[in-house]
Amino acid sequence: MTDCIFCKIVAGDIPANKVYEDEEFLAFHDIAPKADTHVLVIPRRHIVNLNDLGEDDGALMGKLMLTIPHIAATQNLTGYRTITNTGAEGGQEVFHLHFHILGGRALPGF
Amino acid sequence: MTDCIFCKIVAGDIPANKVYEDEEFLAFHDIAPKADTHVLVIPRRHIVNLNDLGEDDGALMGKLMLTIPHIAATQNLTGYRTITNTGAEGGQEVFHLHFHILGGRALPGF
Repeated sequence: MTDCIFCKIVAGDIPANKVYEDEEFLAFHDIAPKADTHVLVIPRRHIVNLNDLGEDDGALMGKLMLTIPHIAATQNLTGYRTITNTGAEGGQEVFHLHFHILGGRALPGF
Repeated sequence: MTDCIFCKIVAGDIPANKVYEDEEFLAFHDIAPKADTHVLVIPRRHIVNLNDLGEDDGALMGKLMLTIPHIAATQNLTGYRTITNTGAEGGQEVFHLHFHILGGRALPGF
């Protein structure tokens, strides 16, 4: 996706303050943090959102769920909120699947 | 976990307004909804939160991620927010892994 900002971060065409990366995922600080700690985790592959997942993506998503605690630990978070927004009506702004990891004071959401 | 409210729902000892169930997961309406639609998805097995996942839980979590869009569809949600809180500092209140699916007006969180 040549016009996807997160694909450009994956490609290295746009800089990001990375906190984690492996063969399948990348995590970096949100440029407009909504909590003391606000990191985004994305798959390198362009997937729009949860509704765009195929039956073959279970392993990828499972690995992502197991990776989130490791990424939270890099930020010294013992407690954290994980959010993913699906579709414009769900508040999604960048249409490349991403999970927010939020920690610290003033956690947004309930 | 005999004193876990979600385990009691799984066991049928506490009623819930179920919207989905299969061999591994159960989804039901939150009793204190924070949006027009507020459903919780839980694994039947007692897992505390994301930090409690073992390396063998990838398949389970992948299946859960693929199931969320189906559960959202049962509520006619095209857009929705998915949240899981890890630890008291992350806002977790019930210590049995659960994902909130929120949709409609007045979506909490950013």
